[in-house]
Amino acid sequence: MQQKSDVMDKIVSLCKRRGFIFQSSEIYGGLGSVWDYGPLGVEIKKNVKEGWWRSNVYERDDIEGLDAAILMHPQVWMASGHVSSFEDTLVDCKNCKKRFKAEQVFGKMCPECGGELTEARQFNLMLKTHLGPIEEAGSLSYLRPETAQGIFVNFQNVVNSMRRKVPFGIAQIGKAFRNEITTGNLTFRSREFEQMEIEFFVKPGTDEEWYRKWVDERFGWYVRFGMREENLRKRQHEQNELAHYAKACTDIEYKFPFGWSELEGIANRTDFDLMQHMNLSTKDLQYFDDESKEKYVPYVIEPSGGIDRSVLAFLTDSYREEEVKGDKRVVLGLHKRLAPVKIAVLPLLRNRPEIVSLAKSITGDLKSSYKAMYDDTASIGRLYRRQDEIGTPYCITVDVDSLTDKKVTVRDRDSMKQDRIAVDQIKEYMVDKFK
Amino acid sequence: MQQKSDVMDKIVSLCKRRGFIFQSSEIYGGLGSVWDYGPLGVEIKKNVKEGWWRSNVYERDDIEGLDAAILMHPQVWMASGHVSSFEDTLVDCKNCKKRFKAEQVFGKMCPECGGELTEARQFNLMLKTHLGPIEEAGSLSYLRPETAQGIFVNFQNVVNSMRRKVPFGIAQIGKAFRNEITTGNLTFRSREFEQMEIEFFVKPGTDEEWYRKWVDERFGWYVRFGMREENLRKRQHEQNELAHYAKACTDIEYKFPFGWSELEGIANRTDFDLMQHMNLSTKDLQYFDDESKEKYVPYVIEPSGGIDRSVLAFLTDSYREEEVKGDKRVVLGLHKRLAPVKIAVLPLLRNRPEIVSLAKSITGDLKSSYKAMYDDTASIGRLYRRQDEIGTPYCITVDVDSLTDKKVTVRDRDSMKQDRIAVDQIKEYMVDKFK
Repeated sequence: MQQKSDVMDKIVSLCKRRGFIFQSSEIYGGLGSVWDYGPLGVEIKKNVKEGWWRSNVYERDDIEGLDAAILMHPQVWMASGHVSSFEDTLVDCKNCKKRFKAEQVFGKMCPECGGELTEARQFNLMLKTHLGPIEEAGSLSYLRPETAQGIFVNFQNVVNSMRRKVPFGIAQIGKAFRNEITTGNLTFRSREFEQMEIEFFVKPGTDEEWYRKWVDERFGWYVRFGMREENLRKRQHEQNELAHYAKACTDIEYKFPFGWSELEGIANRTDFDLMQHMNLSTKDLQYFDDESKEKYVPYVIEPSGGIDRSVLAFLTDSYREEEVKGDKRVVLGLHKRLAPVKIAVLPLLRNRPEIVSLAKSITGDLKSSYKAMYDDTASIGRLYRRQDEIGTPYCITVDVDSLTDKKVTVRDRDSMKQDRIAVDQIKEYMVDKFK
Repeated sequence: MQQKSDVMDKIVSLCKRRGFIFQSSEIYGGLGSVWDYGPLGVEIKKNVKEGWWRSNVYERDDIEGLDAAILMHPQVWMASGHVSSFEDTLVDCKNCKKRFKAEQVFGKMCPECGGELTEARQFNLMLKTHLGPIEEAGSLSYLRPETAQGIFVNFQNVVNSMRRKVPFGIAQIGKAFRNEITTGNLTFRSREFEQMEIEFFVKPGTDEEWYRKWVDERFGWYVRFGMREENLRKRQHEQNELAHYAKACTDIEYKFPFGWSELEGIANRTDFDLMQHMNLSTKDLQYFDDESKEKYVPYVIEPSGGIDRSVLAFLTDSYREEEVKGDKRVVLGLHKRLAPVKIAVLPLLRNRPEIVSLAKSITGDLKSSYKAMYDDTASIGRLYRRQDEIGTPYCITVDVDSLTDKKVTVRDRDSMKQDRIAVDQIKEYMVDKFK
């Protein structure tokens, strides 16, 4: 088995080399802690998002989707508490001018040069911008630091337009921004990131039961998409580490090569947010229960996951090195639904036009249903290794015999078992394999 | 037929009432020209994006996907010309302090109060922000005003990681931001919007042919997704309206209720962007053609579409009012692939538990494959009208007979024709209808 500390380096190198993740603006020396997803990265990320949306919005009947904008009215962030208290405490070195989180250097000299440090100062983590033609207080706006508030301010809109009854939830996927000082570990903590969040509205008193249900449901989701259970754990927050709005919170943590770290947090946010918005906007955000004729502000259970760190966890979790007949084989054993390419079609001989033509026609047929690719730029052994490394579940090889027996070889990524399948049966075969 | 001018009002009202589009931060009085997509809006938008991605990235074999970040290195925008020339010319009224685009009031007094206007001043349309703990020149960053540049700076990364040969394209969907002064017409022109862009790299000399191909391909795409051809037109830019980087540009315009307006622009951007980035970054962005042993900077054909305005066009284009037996019926005749809900299951009698239970079980079965919904909150006539209005292609009605003959009624949105289908045949029936 490879050393855990190596794995991160290997993932970083694989991500760049095979087009999963590139540094933003790399030709200009890069932009710190901002990342671009390449041709394979965009596919795995799309698949994670689609899997989450399908599980929550399509397959359940108690959740609606939403896509609120990144820009919101600044009062939203006053109500939520982000303007006053979404802060890091920072110190500067008087000598080398570097800046650090106070908690990392408390009571010490500068870790870089040994110089004296300034007093600690508060620093808000929201990114600011200005809307309208001049920069003035009235035009100040923020890039949302969480997608959650877009859901809270639309609570009544969704109840009314969708005739929803509590308990129900609103799910949203979208970008959020934080002016992080300490970043690193590839996409794990970045300044621009994507969240998948549900705000699930329940009747006060039923919140603790729903909270427990959601912790289990979300833990199970990662396992269903192939993450190894021994690399996942639930960690309940201590009373003193709870956010100001939370009654309880459990993190789902993944055992990354750099240690156990949060993938998703499930919080009982109580009625904090709706109450705050009700007070500041003076709009009535209470819910009227038709049956019991009661009016109340719902409690909220929030499963909030990071898409970028999920993708990173799925990549590291599925990465393995094997020895096959004395050769090293790198495999991304991704769940079929997450794999960026589903099927690769490989001609055994690229200088035989009939073989190339048959392989291309099979690729063309598969493309309408699956992300399929054709590759003839190397020997078959090397082509297999390339596909294993990016997690392609099935390779179809077209050989000389295919021209007469009208059959091709389908190779399974994990077992490396090969099936000989009639060309006109491939689609059916794949429908079965991917169902 | 309804008046064209009414249609926009009806669409705005339908969008809010049925959960397609809400004003951002509405409970705080709204944020100007920023919009949130509600439960049905997020689905139609997802379907437009998925349709575009599938047509371009999956079904073609000459395009790779990408998902670059919104934040980029500020030098990107110097190279692209946005820092120096992405500007509006504005004037202020000395009396009432209102601000206008100079082109709208040139040589006149204030259109609001008749006051004297100031000299014209330049105003950059990019939204600014600062990364890092202090706001200083070195931390200045921009929210991208177009997704295109994320593709150009990753050109070499994609060529290398995907072993691509020119001609090939890179496709991207993502948010962009512009500090627009003149906005309006719902989501047509907003400060935060989403683009679907392809940068297609070709050998210089073949650019004009590829440009024409892409104009036709993109025009055909809207038609294939059901937009009426008589409401679409191509408009070639005059030499004097071309952007500084473009050799030629054709807009695909849609006949909105407020007039012919741009849905998408297809531009021949020549080698302008890659050359600019090559000069400023001093990185070699030339392409080496293996076969001809030539080195060159590719030309670029850019089909650049707006997702929000596409959604708006699909909504207005499919909106119709009909009279059925003396009753008014509002229908969104959306293409099946774009419809936010694919199938609605409706019990004829909601006080018969066996009927409700059968209807819910059918909904559950369909949910794994289609966005399906169950509704029993009104009489059947009203339930049909609700589904017609949001464009649901099929309604399944469960009635008393269903309990004995194990059949249900499937109603087609457009023809209103009804088929009686066995419960265990519904899935097969729908597979056929949606293929």
